[in-house]
Amino acid sequence: MTNMTDTDMYSKAAIIGVGLIGSSLARGMRAAGAAKSIVGYDLQADVRARAVKCGAVDAAPPTLEEALKGADLVIVSTPVGAMAAVLAEVAAKADDGALVIDVGSVKGAVVEAATSLGGRVHIVPCHPVAGTEQSGPEAGFATLFHHRWSIITPLARSDGAYLEAVKKAAALWRAVGAEVEIMDHLHHDLALAITSHLPHLIAFTLVGAADDLESVAEAEIVKYSAGGFRDFTRIAASDPVMWRDVFLNNKAAVLEVLGRFTEELALLQRAIRWGDAETLEKVFSRGRALRRAIVAAGQEKDVPNFGRDEKA
Amino acid sequence: MTNMTDTDMYSKAAIIGVGLIGSSLARGMRAAGAAKSIVGYDLQADVRARAVKCGAVDAAPPTLEEALKGADLVIVSTPVGAMAAVLAEVAAKADDGALVIDVGSVKGAVVEAATSLGGRVHIVPCHPVAGTEQSGPEAGFATLFHHRWSIITPLARSDGAYLEAVKKAAALWRAVGAEVEIMDHLHHDLALAITSHLPHLIAFTLVGAADDLESVAEAEIVKYSAGGFRDFTRIAASDPVMWRDVFLNNKAAVLEVLGRFTEELALLQRAIRWGDAETLEKVFSRGRALRRAIVAAGQEKDVPNFGRDEKA
Repeated sequence: MTNMTDTDMYSKAAIIGVGLIGSSLARGMRAAGAAKSIVGYDLQADVRARAVKCGAVDAAPPTLEEALKGADLVIVSTPVGAMAAVLAEVAAKADDGALVIDVGSVKGAVVEAATSLGGRVHIVPCHPVAGTEQSGPEAGFATLFHHRWSIITPLARSDGAYLEAVKKAAALWRAVGAEVEIMDHLHHDLALAITSHLPHLIAFTLVGAADDLESVAEAEIVKYSAGGFRDFTRIAASDPVMWRDVFLNNKAAVLEVLGRFTEELALLQRAIRWGDAETLEKVFSRGRALRRAIVAAGQEKDVPNFGRDEKA
Repeated sequence: MTNMTDTDMYSKAAIIGVGLIGSSLARGMRAAGAAKSIVGYDLQADVRARAVKCGAVDAAPPTLEEALKGADLVIVSTPVGAMAAVLAEVAAKADDGALVIDVGSVKGAVVEAATSLGGRVHIVPCHPVAGTEQSGPEAGFATLFHHRWSIITPLARSDGAYLEAVKKAAALWRAVGAEVEIMDHLHHDLALAITSHLPHLIAFTLVGAADDLESVAEAEIVKYSAGGFRDFTRIAASDPVMWRDVFLNNKAAVLEVLGRFTEELALLQRAIRWGDAETLEKVFSRGRALRRAIVAAGQEKDVPNFGRDEKA
């Protein structure tokens, strides 16, 4: 990660939606010296007050207009379902030439919305693939993006000002410790459907199925969760509204990878029913190599059990 | 956890199958002073040598007979598929009155096998709900069972010697830091199907589905795995043979909970297809409460992202 030089420093950054990602970016930018002042805006007065109180932002004015005034950098970090409306408002009210970065987990819907908004501000759709199961301004921390990938899916604009804006967005992500990949938005939505959206859907499904099981008490599920179940509850504890919006806005790609998943599951179900040991062992043998690759790429800690064991 | 007094101390413990669980139990028993000597036996000469070399056991004789000779405590910690045969051999060759504890993740199949073996030794079927995704004697550690539950599913014997054996098995688990629950084996197999077997099946399925996706490269799956996928690769990296045996031996319960899971998944699939925001948000809102309960019960660390984040 590189500190930004004074000439690169933004004079004012406005974070619209000060949750986990917005507040982490604010903290990361402050640590990197990326902006002289950082303000936050959130629809909820309570969140605005908390964002200031926990030190994520310098101030949180009560109106979007005030937050945007004089901002040469705008981060839109609301749930995906609100992005089209927020981007339209930002495009109408932000200063001329402002760099506007959104951080939504789905990019097709954002690219579509942003494309219709004209070129007075420069909207660069981004997705930092990082997060935790917690939410709210207090949950953010400056190193959230360290060694994580941020994907940029640029609009179909080739004017110099826009290309410059994309370069500046990439530099900002690198300043907060991320690596940058530029990608077509459709491919993004498919790649993230398998690496993020489907895992969340499955985790939510498992928790729902366990909750509905009348033959096994919740107290037992809690007690014996160390058998594997507890792993799934981490992402199943993620923000319900954020994830509702992800699925509503990435329908096609999610249904496509879900189809693949249910095919594979049917294969294993059949193998269990018919006692097909060979198929089970073959499929089960694929996990280790992929995990090793993820550890080798620095995307996971190289410790058993996520390091959660007490080793006396 | 309580240290065992000298009068409770076993004179020789034999660990049959020195993998993650067997070697962890050996180490935990040594730390608790539970046995004067601890020997290991494994079908593979290589594993026997490694079990001694890494300090898990004091010795690893080349035959089962030698390992069992003089042992008043026998731990059977092989994959579930081998248990019936190993228990039969142990029942034939172990010293009269030895306490024999198996640690298999499925109990119906073990109880069935053990019931037919007569009462010369006392077989107490157990399942410590603990583990990591690693395997082999080097993967074990003494504190693996701390604050985890060990479930005992006793045979249908009510003679005093057997009831005493069950009490001694419970004391042994407590000595290595576990809490003990006594349960019917059928209920065990259903409760573990939802808390452990199904989560593993789903994780293996997801990794298989991702591996098969020709439109998203493995390198991309690795890069963006922090979006959620990496969580699943932990348990998908578990021992394939052990898990093959679990599914072959707990068919009915796994197919039952799998049916519940696919029903719930179909509900969510339909909600995504039809844009049913309300259903999605409702199901997604159930995760947090269950995770909080698991954390409160001491079955999970109270830190975001399993504590794997670097916080500078």
